[in-house]
Amino acid sequence: MTSQTSPVPSSPEGAAVVRPSASYSITMRVRLPQRPGAFGQVATAIGATGGILGAIDLVRVEKGLKWRDITVSCYDAAHGERVVEAVRAIDGVEVESVLDRTFAMHQGGKIEVTASVPVKTPEDLAMAYTPGVARICLAINQDRERAWSLTIKGHTVAVVSDGTAVLGLGDIGAEAAMPVMEGKALLFKEFAGVDAFPLCVATTDVDEIVAFVKAAAPAFGGINLEDIAAPRCFDIERRLRAELDIPVFHDDQHGTAIVTLAALLNALRVVGKRIQDVKIVVAGAGAAGMACTDIVLAQGARRVIVCDLGGALYRGRPDLDPARAALAERTNPEDERGGADALLAGADVFLGLSGPRAISAAAVRTMARDAIVFAMANPTPEVMPEEVQDDVAIIATGRSDYPNQINNVLAFPGVFRGALDVRATTVNEEMKLAAAQAIAAVIGEDELDAEYIVPSAFNRAVAPAVARRVAEAAVASGVARRAGAEPVEATRAQSALTRLAT
Amino acid sequence: MTSQTSPVPSSPEGAAVVRPSASYSITMRVRLPQRPGAFGQVATAIGATGGILGAIDLVRVEKGLKWRDITVSCYDAAHGERVVEAVRAIDGVEVESVLDRTFAMHQGGKIEVTASVPVKTPEDLAMAYTPGVARICLAINQDRERAWSLTIKGHTVAVVSDGTAVLGLGDIGAEAAMPVMEGKALLFKEFAGVDAFPLCVATTDVDEIVAFVKAAAPAFGGINLEDIAAPRCFDIERRLRAELDIPVFHDDQHGTAIVTLAALLNALRVVGKRIQDVKIVVAGAGAAGMACTDIVLAQGARRVIVCDLGGALYRGRPDLDPARAALAERTNPEDERGGADALLAGADVFLGLSGPRAISAAAVRTMARDAIVFAMANPTPEVMPEEVQDDVAIIATGRSDYPNQINNVLAFPGVFRGALDVRATTVNEEMKLAAAQAIAAVIGEDELDAEYIVPSAFNRAVAPAVARRVAEAAVASGVARRAGAEPVEATRAQSALTRLAT
Repeated sequence: MTSQTSPVPSSPEGAAVVRPSASYSITMRVRLPQRPGAFGQVATAIGATGGILGAIDLVRVEKGLKWRDITVSCYDAAHGERVVEAVRAIDGVEVESVLDRTFAMHQGGKIEVTASVPVKTPEDLAMAYTPGVARICLAINQDRERAWSLTIKGHTVAVVSDGTAVLGLGDIGAEAAMPVMEGKALLFKEFAGVDAFPLCVATTDVDEIVAFVKAAAPAFGGINLEDIAAPRCFDIERRLRAELDIPVFHDDQHGTAIVTLAALLNALRVVGKRIQDVKIVVAGAGAAGMACTDIVLAQGARRVIVCDLGGALYRGRPDLDPARAALAERTNPEDERGGADALLAGADVFLGLSGPRAISAAAVRTMARDAIVFAMANPTPEVMPEEVQDDVAIIATGRSDYPNQINNVLAFPGVFRGALDVRATTVNEEMKLAAAQAIAAVIGEDELDAEYIVPSAFNRAVAPAVARRVAEAAVASGVARRAGAEPVEATRAQSALTRLAT
Repeated sequence: MTSQTSPVPSSPEGAAVVRPSASYSITMRVRLPQRPGAFGQVATAIGATGGILGAIDLVRVEKGLKWRDITVSCYDAAHGERVVEAVRAIDGVEVESVLDRTFAMHQGGKIEVTASVPVKTPEDLAMAYTPGVARICLAINQDRERAWSLTIKGHTVAVVSDGTAVLGLGDIGAEAAMPVMEGKALLFKEFAGVDAFPLCVATTDVDEIVAFVKAAAPAFGGINLEDIAAPRCFDIERRLRAELDIPVFHDDQHGTAIVTLAALLNALRVVGKRIQDVKIVVAGAGAAGMACTDIVLAQGARRVIVCDLGGALYRGRPDLDPARAALAERTNPEDERGGADALLAGADVFLGLSGPRAISAAAVRTMARDAIVFAMANPTPEVMPEEVQDDVAIIATGRSDYPNQINNVLAFPGVFRGALDVRATTVNEEMKLAAAQAIAAVIGEDELDAEYIVPSAFNRAVAPAVARRVAEAAVASGVARRAGAEPVEATRAQSALTRLAT
């Protein structure tokens, strides 16, 4: 076992921040003497290292010995090694093998391409492949729109990344980005029945990525751009949106913005404020910060101040690139100046899309009554919830181990499902607002609470609700190719009793 | 019901060529009076049109009426209409709906992207996605070769086409090519457990296709080029083979060549001739003709004459493009001249990779004793088997309704499975020859017969045999990244008892 460079702090000292997690869990096959208390010793040894005992299976019993598979959640790989050493140190106990569960789960990748029709007989082959398939090809050749129903296009999305801004890891390359994109494909399928295929491209050139996606488009009903570094991501998305007739959606921007707005709408309901009236400070003027700013403006916010490492964005600030200069034009109406901490004075809402510990707890205490703090930097938030929980009304993070996790998985599956259902040509502002409102509405008035402003990532009601509202918004805003949301399954069943050929 | 332009002759007059087929089958829901002989009338009416009755299901019985689903194989769509009309004309019988089974089968396309790991709990999510996935990304970032085991790369192939030479249909465009490429993906999975994803590109520019495939390569362990028109296909394949470190295989060339050689090896066994001694006439100097020529040369053939519409290719023929000029250099040792018919005089083998009725039956009768004729043009062969079956020893076609079908599905699934199993960097001549020999060897000496020189497309022994021999050939020729063929499943299982992280 070698140590992994870890994207999270690697010692139990960070326990207030990082807890033992399934992502660093191991399964040891342990051989124990069949004497009373043997397992107790193992459990005690594990507990002493800070490891959390999970599943314990009995594998076999033989000649006074017992073999058990013991799963332990750890802080990190080094902690896993300490757990194994601690168990090995027990007299009469052997650790025969150790499985890193996360690595084991990724063996062979996480997705498959499977048949949705049978090919078991020559008759199947004659219909699915030659000669029958020629009839389908000709039908599409005569009317290209039929690709939506006669190929996978109507339910399939490309997840495209160049691997330059993956998680918190930065530019790690196309191959190394694949596990994330495969994970995304998993989530598309699991939550919304959307088939997604990961395409991690071996280029970081804007023109080449644009050309690549345009060339790939015929097979797909939508393009999910992912983990592409700013500012290239803006250019790529803008050009593809202009040139393609299918939705192009950079999830790091718009997925984050949708879920942030959903959470903000509910947070404002909890504290009884209106978005038109509040002062919102956005920390971070990257891809996510810009998209969050735009969506709160679209929802009616008026007093939004964005800041980057150089402080507030304001009209005429000399060091701004064109994207930030444009953002300064449509924000900061009172021309405020200063860094994030200074801007927080009197603010109602903080949206953190920047980096670890970007604001101080002291500054948070200068915010208005019933302050709302979304500290979404991962894994270390802009301010630790523990430090400010008594000073603010609501706190949300990007993490699953605090309440109110702002998690993109609440948005992208339903957004694409809705867009595909009506064969939308784009994902526009109306659809994004509809998605945010749909997520917010999943939590009823009676359930709403300072610690429950966004649904769980596993709430199965979210994606269908988002899909429905997104589809309606697409139709209402004139970007749908067809009026009704009609899932593939329904189409497939109905076709069994329609008419011959076309 | 509207008529489809048909790639096959569209009247029963063509019955000697085209038979009623599942690819033109319909299922009618028919309401019959519950009187003796009612179904007999329907069956008779269908038979009178030339339709072939298939499955008959009883759907419901009610108030003296019966509803049946009746499946009929037809010649073409127009024939389907005549069948429906004939049944409708029967007194008291109603056709309530008609389903075109081929179109129904293609509704929503033919493949899905599914999860190969569970994402049902927060623990699953923490391992398959954030935060756990970051550990996998970093491992690949540190050692790019680990993408073979930690992503889908090790078992996944891209099926890439520009839609310019699809089946016999020509340049029908990327969208219209998708049904064929999806079908290919089906076959990859069904016969060899290879995950294949179809990418039909919206460009026919050689540079753009090369750039596209190079950009797409990180996700894939191999590239199957498909239905790209000559001569661009040569250029694209040559450049990609030079620039990528994964197999690039144009199936129209090499898949056809492998199966042709397999059939030829067995045909020569049947007639007791050696490939070194025979005169082989190849009709067609396109992609498939060139590849077939090269593989028979690689297998030891010496006297091969290729002809195109301008007659035999010979050194110095003035109208040859560079590819054909080079082909002329390595063939036609006796500098023969003339068209296909003339060249057949005294020939032992005819390999037809050209077009319908390209040679005459009379010319076939001038071939040597125990002639072998492979008339592989589809759907209409170079010469109809009926016309020459008494004059030659062996005849093979590309069609499933005659014995000895030369079908690429015998090659490509096993070729890629074998290449992936050893993580080959390319598919070289040694691997192609091994594949052909493996296919040929599936038919034992005792089974071998003039009408059984190639295994059935559904023979499950073929792909594993091909994969094994291809993997061995890759290792022996030094293009394998690892020595043993180790299927993904085995890797996955073994990893359950290995070691932590690495």
